[in-house]
Amino acid sequence: MYSQQMYALGSKRSIIREIFEYAKVRSAEIGADKVFDFSLGNPNVPAPEAVKETLLDLIQNTDPVVLHGYTSAQGDFGVRDTIAKSLNRRFGTQLTANHLYMTVGAAASISICCRALSCPGDEFITFAPYFTEYQVFVECNGASLKVVPAREPDFQIDFEAFKALINERTKAVIINSPNNPSGVVYSEATIVTLCDLLREKSAEYGHPIYLITDEPYREIVYDGVQVPFLINYYDNCLVCYSFSKALSLPGERIGYVAVSNKMQDGEAIYAAVCGAGRALGYVCAPSLFQFLVGRCADLTSDMSFYRTNRDLLYNGLTEMGYSCVKPDGAFYLFVKSPEKDANAFFERAKKYELLLVPGDDFGCPGYVRIAYCVKTSLIQNALPAFRALAQEYGLTK
Amino acid sequence: MYSQQMYALGSKRSIIREIFEYAKVRSAEIGADKVFDFSLGNPNVPAPEAVKETLLDLIQNTDPVVLHGYTSAQGDFGVRDTIAKSLNRRFGTQLTANHLYMTVGAAASISICCRALSCPGDEFITFAPYFTEYQVFVECNGASLKVVPAREPDFQIDFEAFKALINERTKAVIINSPNNPSGVVYSEATIVTLCDLLREKSAEYGHPIYLITDEPYREIVYDGVQVPFLINYYDNCLVCYSFSKALSLPGERIGYVAVSNKMQDGEAIYAAVCGAGRALGYVCAPSLFQFLVGRCADLTSDMSFYRTNRDLLYNGLTEMGYSCVKPDGAFYLFVKSPEKDANAFFERAKKYELLLVPGDDFGCPGYVRIAYCVKTSLIQNALPAFRALAQEYGLTK
Repeated sequence: MYSQQMYALGSKRSIIREIFEYAKVRSAEIGADKVFDFSLGNPNVPAPEAVKETLLDLIQNTDPVVLHGYTSAQGDFGVRDTIAKSLNRRFGTQLTANHLYMTVGAAASISICCRALSCPGDEFITFAPYFTEYQVFVECNGASLKVVPAREPDFQIDFEAFKALINERTKAVIINSPNNPSGVVYSEATIVTLCDLLREKSAEYGHPIYLITDEPYREIVYDGVQVPFLINYYDNCLVCYSFSKALSLPGERIGYVAVSNKMQDGEAIYAAVCGAGRALGYVCAPSLFQFLVGRCADLTSDMSFYRTNRDLLYNGLTEMGYSCVKPDGAFYLFVKSPEKDANAFFERAKKYELLLVPGDDFGCPGYVRIAYCVKTSLIQNALPAFRALAQEYGLTK
Repeated sequence: MYSQQMYALGSKRSIIREIFEYAKVRSAEIGADKVFDFSLGNPNVPAPEAVKETLLDLIQNTDPVVLHGYTSAQGDFGVRDTIAKSLNRRFGTQLTANHLYMTVGAAASISICCRALSCPGDEFITFAPYFTEYQVFVECNGASLKVVPAREPDFQIDFEAFKALINERTKAVIINSPNNPSGVVYSEATIVTLCDLLREKSAEYGHPIYLITDEPYREIVYDGVQVPFLINYYDNCLVCYSFSKALSLPGERIGYVAVSNKMQDGEAIYAAVCGAGRALGYVCAPSLFQFLVGRCADLTSDMSFYRTNRDLLYNGLTEMGYSCVKPDGAFYLFVKSPEKDANAFFERAKKYELLLVPGDDFGCPGYVRIAYCVKTSLIQNALPAFRALAQEYGLTK
């Protein structure tokens, strides 16, 4: 009578959403300050003051018919031109407005790329731990998703496992660095090895294997770590970006797809991206926020805040005996469960009012994700609970 | 190597877009005031002043983490509650927040409904003249679209032709009233006959036939004409709305799907709508504009302007001998071509710098669409050109 697949997608709440709802109920019971909710990747650092000022200026001083009017389907030319120049300045690329397609955020960007590229029988590959919505975006757009198991404990790429999955049906590879949920940034060595292998396999199979790089956390990095800009490493690359995290605008749904200027059949791929946006019902990205990001392309929120949180939490937990890779970016800590079953660990943590997310949801059992985009005081207050939990497991040194 | 279907969708510009681009080139050649561009349905009446004031107030006085943060996937509860109450007040319905799903505009609403309902082999039916993107939205979401030919000259529904197309594979019917491109509002008699027939056929085939009503022009009507609110006429109804036209916010992409509270398996259908939004990559509708429409749910732009334009253009053209149905709503005039081939008429009009859109693009050959959401002075200046064109065809009385 209706699509059972869509019903299943809509009726099954994600685990993260379940935990979030539990947190609301629990907060009502015992008080919000006593519930340590680390479940959601919702940036808690406000958007920079310049975002507010720019919005006010745009609204006060722009003809509303222009400000709120349709832009071209691929986005306002001036905005795309500004973003292309910003990328060129920062990464030494040679992109133009005609390589950029403005989208309603990273989820839209990835969905559009999947739809633009997928032919019947195609396979996409991604690497655990990974954002499990990839499965939805790939499979609802006509391809299937294969997942390379995680390489522990550093969460770089397990190339032997990858080679076992790549084959002539592989249409594209999706990477996410800085990574949700691990916070790991792929090293340049990882990127070079990956790109060499993709070139080799493209030649072997006689067709390009596309690299889709999902990078909403590109600007959220610590200690001067460099995130390799993939267009400089691989020609057949599509960059999926969102301003959600770096500008703290997750609800506004604004981002882009950048199609490498060096891509084989690049104009056709760009046209297919435009076609996929049309097919999925996008029309154009929200106009006010297009103009906003055009003016704020080089800005980010105050990242020192996340850095403080990372250090406090990473140092605190590792001192207590927990194991986790030190995150170079994003705002997540991916902690090894002290017992094999991370779901059991999750339940035990819950008794201390610590709300974490089991790694199973990221294709990586045996870990939990801690989203530290929270008030620093919440981390401070949570540390004794983490310590008591560590003692229960006999971890504390 | 990539999706040929998406490439075709992205590389073939729509005729409207072609004309729009031609208008830009021609304006540069002879001056914008000499080009009579009636091609685009982009509202030229500014958003109401209250929209500006509300945006400024929201930005100045709301915590940016909340204002720009993720809402729930189906939209902010308070916003949905407000819109449900606004609809109930105006139309006597009994909707709640849980029947509303906020979307990125009407195109998204329709795509989501198509995806939520489609099963393999399904057919959807719509009525010419119609917005041809329906074909994209239906066919890219897994069903096929059948088109009932136009009933001339009043553009109500040709029920005999409809009965010839409806069959056991019919999953849903899409209507659009006030109509783009004809401006016609379906009479209550038309709606009642349609709904009776859909109930009869649902019973005959043993499954519901859904009614999807695309109504971005619901608030743009003249002379006190009433647009029947379909939920009051048919239980298995999904309303696709956008604030684009009524609030002059087409670029901001904000609208909703309302699933009738009386729908069979309504909770499951609503879940399928949520699932389809997730599958298509929507995450949530833009948060600032969700809050805005929550506060401006009962407002519209100044509609007297379109009324002035309609009267000026309709009276002017019919006096010259052109034939067209008097539009009760929207901001389009659908004029019968004085020669059989509307494309030839379109070309001849172009010589007078009159840029119209051939009806072929709306599944209705032999007509042209004139979008009168333009400055009144443009219509005044264009009338002599229309007259000269009428004389060329020997129309002028």
